[in-house]
This record gives sequence, C-alpha cells and structure tokens, in this order.
Amino acid sequence: MVTRTVALSGFPEWLPEQRLVEQRVLDTLREVFELHGFSSVETRALEPLTELVRQGETSKEVYVVRRLNAEPSGDDTGLGLHFDLTVPLARYVVEHAGKLDFPFRRYQVQRAWRGERPQDGRFREFTQADIDIVGKDTLGFHHEVELTLVAGEAFRRLPLPPVRMLVNNRRIAEGFYLGAGIDAELVPEVLRSVDKLDKIGPDEVRTALSADGLTAAQADACLRLAEISAADSSFVPQVRALGVEHELLDQGLEELARVVDAAAEHAPGLVVADLKIARGLDYYTGTVYETQLVGHEDLGSICSGGRYDALATDGATTYPGVGISFGVTRLLSRLFSRELVVASRRVPTCVVVALPDDASRPRCDRIAAALRARGIPTEVAPDAAKYGKQIRYAERRGVPFVWFPGADGEADQVKDIRTGDQLDAGAGTWVPPDTDRHPTISSSKERTQ
Amino acid sequence: MVTRTVALSGFPEWLPEQRLVEQRVLDTLREVFELHGFSSVETRALEPLTELVRQGETSKEVYVVRRLNAEPSGDDTGLGLHFDLTVPLARYVVEHAGKLDFPFRRYQVQRAWRGERPQDGRFREFTQADIDIVGKDTLGFHHEVELTLVAGEAFRRLPLPPVRMLVNNRRIAEGFYLGAGIDAELVPEVLRSVDKLDKIGPDEVRTALSADGLTAAQADACLRLAEISAADSSFVPQVRALGVEHELLDQGLEELARVVDAAAEHAPGLVVADLKIARGLDYYTGTVYETQLVGHEDLGSICSGGRYDALATDGATTYPGVGISFGVTRLLSRLFSRELVVASRRVPTCVVVALPDDASRPRCDRIAAALRARGIPTEVAPDAAKYGKQIRYAERRGVPFVWFPGADGEADQVKDIRTGDQLDAGAGTWVPPDTDRHPTISSSKERTQ
Repeated sequence: MVTRTVALSGFPEWLPEQRLVEQRVLDTLREVFELHGFSSVETRALEPLTELVRQGETSKEVYVVRRLNAEPSGDDTGLGLHFDLTVPLARYVVEHAGKLDFPFRRYQVQRAWRGERPQDGRFREFTQADIDIVGKDTLGFHHEVELTLVAGEAFRRLPLPPVRMLVNNRRIAEGFYLGAGIDAELVPEVLRSVDKLDKIGPDEVRTALSADGLTAAQADACLRLAEISAADSSFVPQVRALGVEHELLDQGLEELARVVDAAAEHAPGLVVADLKIARGLDYYTGTVYETQLVGHEDLGSICSGGRYDALATDGATTYPGVGISFGVTRLLSRLFSRELVVASRRVPTCVVVALPDDASRPRCDRIAAALRARGIPTEVAPDAAKYGKQIRYAERRGVPFVWFPGADGEADQVKDIRTGDQLDAGAGTWVPPDTDRHPTISSSKERTQ
Repeated sequence: MVTRTVALSGFPEWLPEQRLVEQRVLDTLREVFELHGFSSVETRALEPLTELVRQGETSKEVYVVRRLNAEPSGDDTGLGLHFDLTVPLARYVVEHAGKLDFPFRRYQVQRAWRGERPQDGRFREFTQADIDIVGKDTLGFHHEVELTLVAGEAFRRLPLPPVRMLVNNRRIAEGFYLGAGIDAELVPEVLRSVDKLDKIGPDEVRTALSADGLTAAQADACLRLAEISAADSSFVPQVRALGVEHELLDQGLEELARVVDAAAEHAPGLVVADLKIARGLDYYTGTVYETQLVGHEDLGSICSGGRYDALATDGATTYPGVGISFGVTRLLSRLFSRELVVASRRVPTCVVVALPDDASRPRCDRIAAALRARGIPTEVAPDAAKYGKQIRYAERRGVPFVWFPGADGEADQVKDIRTGDQLDAGAGTWVPPDTDRHPTISSSKERTQ
C-alpha cells in the first residue's frame, strides 16, 4: 500500500522548524489579545451556503462540502467551508447572544478556505487571527482607537520587520464628497474608483470619476483628498485647506485624529493616516485599517479591518462591531521565503540523554523524567549507538545538550555540544541557561523600527 | 440583512468559558508533548479522495469538497476533508521525508471531519491531539513503552476524573491462536469476533468463533485468553497456565510485560493489561492502547492507538510508527455535560479599570497599559457609567478586580470585588495573587486517582 503524495497548490504546509515560528507568532498574538481581555472562541468550519454566498463578491471562491454518500436532500447538503472568520462570528453572536456578555471581546485563530487562484501571499487554505469587539445596539467609538493599540502591541512583540498601519475613516471621504456637492447615491461608486488609485494611478481614476458623473473640479478635489497622508493629526488642516465642509467630514476628521494621536502615544511610529485607504467591503462605516510590512508592500495587507455598524442582526437587535484580522499564513509565507526569521533549533528538545547500552534504558528514562519534572524538554536517545552517533543525532536537530549517565559510582555529565564544554551534573538540580530551555525565534535582521 | 442561525447536529461549539477549559487541555497536552521532544506539525485539511477512501470502513463517512464554480475536471476535484490525523501524517512523512529527522517525533492538534450519525461523544467535526513516533525502515520497541509514559504524564496533569489505560499486544492473540492450532488465515476473523466480546458477550462470541471454523476447545481457549486482565505482569503466568506455546506469543508477553512494568513505575495505577483489547484497525502490529474515563466507560475510548509496522511507504522505504490519539472534543463534551470542570471566571481579564468620565479615558488607558506591561490582563470599562454598574460589568464575567483611578492628587485604589477589600495601589507595582492572574480550571470533584 504505497502512499501517494499529491502536492496541492495554495495549501501550504510548514516543516517542523517553520511551525516553531508559527507557534511563536500565534502564542504572541494570543498573549497580547488575552492581556487586553479578549476571549478565545472557535467556530465550526462549515456554514450554510446561503450565508456564505450572499456576499456576492466572494461567492465564486467558496468550497462546497457534502458527505460522499449523502442523500441529495440530506441534512448536510448546502454547506460550505467558511472563507473568513467574520461571517461565522456574526452567526455565533446571534446564535449564542443570550449567553454572551456585551460588548463581547473575542479573538479567533482558525483556518479559512477560499478557492482563489493561488499566488504569492494568497492561499486556498490559510490561518487568520481575528479580534473583534461586538456591541449590542451600540458600541463606543473609542473601541476603534483601542484596536490600533492592540495591534501595535502585537507588532511590537512579533519577530517582524517594521510595520506601517494605514488608517482612514469612511466618514471623511463620504462627508467630503457630500460637501463637494456629489450626489449621495454616487458615493459608493466614487469610493470604489478612488480605491483603485494605487493600482491604476491618478489619471485613470480621474477618467473613472468623470465617468461616474463628477465635474472636473469634484474629481480633482477627490484626488487631492486621497493624496493626503500624515503620521500625526496634521492631516486635519490639510483637509480643511481643501475648503470643503460637511458635518460627517467633521466627525470623521475628529475620530481619525483621535486614533492617530492615541497611537502616537502608545505605539509611536506605527500608524499613518492615509486618506486613500477605503477597503473594498461595503459594510465598513467608520475607521478602516490596513497594514504593510515595510519593504514588502507588494505582499498586500497583513492586518486589516474596520468598523461596521451592523455586523449582524436578528431582526430585533443589531450588533455593531469593530475588528481586525491578522493574515498569519500570508505573513509567515514571506518570513520564510525571504528568510526573515531564524529558529535556534528544529525541535523542542533541550537535552538528549545518551544511552550507554540497551539495559540502561530504564535508568535513562528516570534521568529524563527528573529533567522534565523541572520543565526541561528531554528525549532519550533512540538507540544505544556509539556516543559520536548519538551526539550527531542531537546536533543535527540543533539540540544544545547531551547528557551522559555516569558509570558505576560516577557523576552524570552534561555536554554543551556547541562549545564542547562538559561538566558534572545532577538530573534533579541542573538547569540550562534560560535562552536554551526552549527554541528561540529571532529576526534575522536587526529591527530598525 | 438578517443573520440566520442554523444549528448543525454533530458540530459542537463552545462558549467562551468552555473554550477556556479546552485551551487548558490543549496547553497541557502541548506542554507534555514538547517536554518529551515532540515537534508540532499541522497538515492541510484536504487530502485526495483516493487516499481517504481506500480504507474501506471509513469511506462512507468522508466529506467531499469542491469549489462552488469548479470546472468538472478542475485541479481541485477529488478532494475530501481528512477524517483523522494519521492518513495526513503518512502523506506528510513521505512528502517531506528528505527534510525530516528520523525517528520523527511529531504531535498534531487539529480538527477532523466524519459524516457519521452524531451521538453522545461522537461528532462530525472534532479536535484530536495525536502523537506519533515514525521510524525509517526500523523503529525500536521501546517507543511503545514510551507512549504510555507520555500519556500517563498528560493524564496526571489534566483536570480529569481518574483514567484507566487498557493495553494489549497484537502478538499475544496472534501467537496464541497459532499456538492453539488455528489457521493463520483465520486469525484476522477471530480477532474481529473476539473484539466484540464487550458488546455481544461470551456466548455470542463462542457462536461466532464456531462459525469462523474453530473447534469448541479452540473457541474456549480464545475466550479464556480474552478474559485475562491485570494491573501488573501477573497476566504472564495466567496466559502460560492456558498451556499454549508459540514464539510470537512469547514475544508479545515479554513486550506487554515491559509496557506494564514501566507504566507501574512512572504512572502507577494508570495501565492495565487487558487481553481482549484488539482495536478494529488491521494495521496495528504490536502494542495497542485504549483509554477509559473511570465511571464514564460508556463514552468510549478517549485515547487510543498502537504500533503499526507500515504507517507509510513510498515503495523503496517503509516507515513504521507508533501513535496515540487524544479525543479532545469527546473528552470535553463529557466534562461539560456532567459539569466535571469549573473555570474560575469567564474571561481572561483580571482587572477592569473603572472610567470616572469620558475625558479620563486616556488616563485609564495608561493605567491599563502599565498593568499589561507586567502581564496582568486588563480592560478599561466600556462606558463611564455609574461605578455600581461598572462593578457589575466586571462581576458578571467573574473578573476579580476593579481599579479606581484616584481623584486629583489621590492614590488609585484596587477593589477585590469578591471580598469587597479596597486598597491604595500603583499601576506600576501592584500584582494580583498568582491564582488570580489567569483563569484557573479545576475538577469540580476531588480526584481520587
């Protein structure tokens, strides 16, 4: 029975030493999320197709699931794999609302699936780490500020190149357009046209805006707004200088200034107000976020999200929310392909106990148990091979220490196989240096942020 | 746009306070696995259907996956969700063999999917935690001993009722049957018949064995063997007393005695040699494991596995292995339905910083940041409501402490809302009791093991 291997494009799998990096990233995110009081939730991988496909733009990417021998009208037809963690969150909140506390602060780290054409940074199966704060009927604006601070804390702790978070507020563009005399019903179309600025350039956008029905002056104003960007609240007078006034614009400017000012205090250098950021999805209503890995802007956003006034509704109650999603697989794919991170070893093991002969295995097991009891990851060598071979078994995996059980009456010894230093040691007392107990993960370049 | 909720039978979802228990269980398993030098691996959720369905007995349970708008002959047809973590491991090992170190010690915690009829302890989507040790061409027997010790360490640390691990060795039954003069080709059939002992009782098994072609004396011997069970190696003379001899039987008895004796030393009270345990799957060739939660035997096994001489082969190389799988979702479903575990609170948050008024939010954010910088999970209250309401916000979630920012020139105070004690405190120095920093999980009954 030969095992056939079929590589599937877009379904990345990591080697054990890469998985150590992924675990470090996920552990860090979890720690930061929990420090900020977010509760972990996981949802089932399957949702009704009707919920998955009603967002027209993603319907073609959904994976349909059915039992191999299912009846055509069985109870498990019409299901698909979730393509993000937001649709499942909306359903979870409505389904369990009576048992949740609002505002509901949840984080969720799970895989999602999209049948997209695989390309650099874009996968068919990928892991996302989402945080959302969901209110019942109302949700304070300050949570939009809060999420940048949580993200900033996460980026500060992750082994990453510098990161730039681009923030905007939907109300600025909407208020500005209305204040410039653009018809309300044209606003979504104008947003979509301006959103293409980075892709197609200002001239093409101007053409698109004319086609949308804007005057040349209006198109020009829209483009000048989109070009404004600042690392502090100096974007406010720049917008004011364009001479457009509207109540929504005022609110948007004030909110975005609060986000930028709070970020400047708690996460200096992270956040830039960038008035061309729109995020495609129609349901955002306030702050929107995108994040670039500096020097890797081609990768696309590694952390995006925004405020939505109606994440979900059960008819009677509406649940507003604000959330951001870390693209863990996208981020890792770049860290690995450019060798931006290094793990200090390939396995969790800190000590390999050498095996003098087969009869000594129970004794070696006792040594290993004594080390593990004090939290030191330990393996006993698989075979009573020559010590040179046993040392190479450890060395090949990057295990730093080999333990030699003493002959009759003699003390055990432990050898640091990087330096060759070998010392007497007791399994009940010896401790490795803190930096050797577990694998460490580090950026292969000095961080400059 | 109303969110419809469709409950799916067999797809369990936990509330945040239950998820805290699941996290504790998974963290404990991970810690134990890594202490024993197992590397984490995750595999893609999808495998080719051809690999999934060739194990005849599970084919009807497989979920098929396809893109909603896939071409009939597209590259993503013929895929299914994995129904366990062993088939993916076999494929992963063959696919990445050149980049792995053998013996390859891996653990894998992931969801799997089976289209089975849902019932108590049996789900359509569930989380498993597997450990396997995979050799290249050869794999020492001692790893079969080792896995009971790893499992014993895990069970010792988990918040569970007492656990009983039932262990047998395929060679005992096979050698015994051959020694009793049963035809080699009848052995698999006899194994399957004896495996039904607990379900259908000795009389029905005797009838089945006669139907298989055994003499009355042979059937009787098989039943007497299956009835033997012992917490130490006293099962050996009991088997010997049946008067059957065979080389394979000798090997099986010696191996099982080694498993039981090592377990008695490292995990006293855990392991019982039970000679009727067969495990249905044909590919086991040595030690087999099953695990009962004492008092909850009806739940079925919560941790099973065994030795297989050919986990995978690429034609040239064969990969023997030994593995066990913890049924995390099955275990949790019982812990929750019988209320066997209690979490000390519903959220990670240790401190809620009360908000005197909206203008104080930046100051409260600074207090929270100072507490978090020292690892104390902290939230700022969502609204500047009356303090009584803010305290109830914390209390409802089980958060133990509320922090009151001091008025001009006065010290901050922290209140333990369980006792009402309120003291002056500084956000840069105060620490909660160790047991309050993170939610704690405890068995609701005293463990008697």
